[in-house]
Amino acid sequence: MLDVCLVGTGGMMPLPDRWLSSAVVRVSGQMALLDCGEGTQISLKMLGWGFKDISAVLISHFHADHVAGLVGLLLMIGNSYREEELTIYGPLGLQRVVDGLRTIAPELPFPVRCQELKGGETFHFAGIEGSCLMVDHAVSCLAYSVYVRRGRRFSAEKARALNIPVELWKTLQQEQPVEWQGRWYQPSDVLLEPRRGLKLCYITDTRPTSALPTFVRDSDLLVCEGMYGDPADHEKAVENKHLTFAEAAQIARRGKARELWLTHFSPSLMEPENYLEVARSIFQNTVVGRDRMCKTLSFGR
Amino acid sequence: MLDVCLVGTGGMMPLPDRWLSSAVVRVSGQMALLDCGEGTQISLKMLGWGFKDISAVLISHFHADHVAGLVGLLLMIGNSYREEELTIYGPLGLQRVVDGLRTIAPELPFPVRCQELKGGETFHFAGIEGSCLMVDHAVSCLAYSVYVRRGRRFSAEKARALNIPVELWKTLQQEQPVEWQGRWYQPSDVLLEPRRGLKLCYITDTRPTSALPTFVRDSDLLVCEGMYGDPADHEKAVENKHLTFAEAAQIARRGKARELWLTHFSPSLMEPENYLEVARSIFQNTVVGRDRMCKTLSFGR
Repeated sequence: MLDVCLVGTGGMMPLPDRWLSSAVVRVSGQMALLDCGEGTQISLKMLGWGFKDISAVLISHFHADHVAGLVGLLLMIGNSYREEELTIYGPLGLQRVVDGLRTIAPELPFPVRCQELKGGETFHFAGIEGSCLMVDHAVSCLAYSVYVRRGRRFSAEKARALNIPVELWKTLQQEQPVEWQGRWYQPSDVLLEPRRGLKLCYITDTRPTSALPTFVRDSDLLVCEGMYGDPADHEKAVENKHLTFAEAAQIARRGKARELWLTHFSPSLMEPENYLEVARSIFQNTVVGRDRMCKTLSFGR
Repeated sequence: MLDVCLVGTGGMMPLPDRWLSSAVVRVSGQMALLDCGEGTQISLKMLGWGFKDISAVLISHFHADHVAGLVGLLLMIGNSYREEELTIYGPLGLQRVVDGLRTIAPELPFPVRCQELKGGETFHFAGIEGSCLMVDHAVSCLAYSVYVRRGRRFSAEKARALNIPVELWKTLQQEQPVEWQGRWYQPSDVLLEPRRGLKLCYITDTRPTSALPTFVRDSDLLVCEGMYGDPADHEKAVENKHLTFAEAAQIARRGKARELWLTHFSPSLMEPENYLEVARSIFQNTVVGRDRMCKTLSFGR
């Protein structure tokens, strides 16, 4: 299972009921944030999922509406008595940005590690396999994919046929080899074919790129910026390196995502719902995001 | 007239309905902020006073709950098309802190000037005379006083007695000397005695000091931290270098302030109203602050 919640759905500048960019994912009690705009700690407090188990923060890029809430978040996590390391992922230059922001929070009760990414890397955190893709914005900006693996089903029939005692089954189920009467048994001897896991993609602050549909391929959920709803704003989107609703929907469609949540709305876009049909005419299963909108993605499909 | 509004009344960590430290004052359309915790730009947006006319930010000290909202605020002001210089005041080290935070906002459409203060200085901004006092916290921390001068009343009787033509009265009223038929007339020739202006003081993150009652002397409004309400928390206040409600009330009483607003409540203090009587038994005109509580102080007393 993977819980996801949009913490803030505003782009560039906040509105009273639409704060700046952030989303949170939770897998087996561990959490990771995708971006951390100003107000993230306040919205997370409203959400009530706690802070102690946030073990990673993935930053798309260093514009303030995506990162200015980082110091407040780290302090809030510190006040929740976390002692384990927290890893921040982001584009090259991350360490300099984190050091700059931490001028006002030099001391924390847990270690913070920065991992700078060029795009294309795979990395692991909070029971999740992450990957990233460099996109096309005014500054270096990464799209992220979050993948939760699904364990392979165990075949009791195969295990019995191999005379493997029941007390060793659990180890094999956990994909560890076991030895029994001088012979080694491999997980693949008793596990059925790999099963598809859960995939969530997060794309913000970019123009469409040719790599994006492949990157989001078969996502259970694509969280994607829709800075502009009105097709008449297409030129603004080109100029400011953002996506329109229609372009976000095209990425979802080409990548065969199952669902699209639009987020990161321009402050000038007061009623994103007014343009929902523009997106739905391209990709039917489109939803307009709002702050603290949540969903649980589950394996049982 | 001086309008004042508490933008955020939380100390250390925000609660869903109590954000981090900030207050705003407005005189003749010009605004200045006192502190700028995370979420300040969002709460100001809710308030609706606009951003373009914020010409000064006075920072008490560099703990994140008082300053982490600065970058978001500066960007919001930039987006309101301000081009005039904005001055940030704060303790020594201010320039380093502002430079660190501006790692994510290096470019703004208006100049930002930092003025570092040791305590004891007087300075002018937004039609206001500011002054500051070093207080007693874990790091260098300033209390601020904001004074709005009241113009002296013009005596038409005196002007007539001196045969000064009516068309020159306005200049004298504006406290400029004028020449008429080879003779210079001074404002003091036609203006009555000086009148008391409006004084607001802002004290946060300190233990009581001997200088504080004098600093707040005759304030129309004292905005003062009340981190702890319960008298049983006195030791915590000593240890963490904060004030209790009772100590804030004593400062107001000794300084003969007219009104006291408590703010900067500990996140553990869920219902500050429960301890209001503790403060009122010492200083009757005490009010528990809440986010976006506003008041207009006027000369007409």
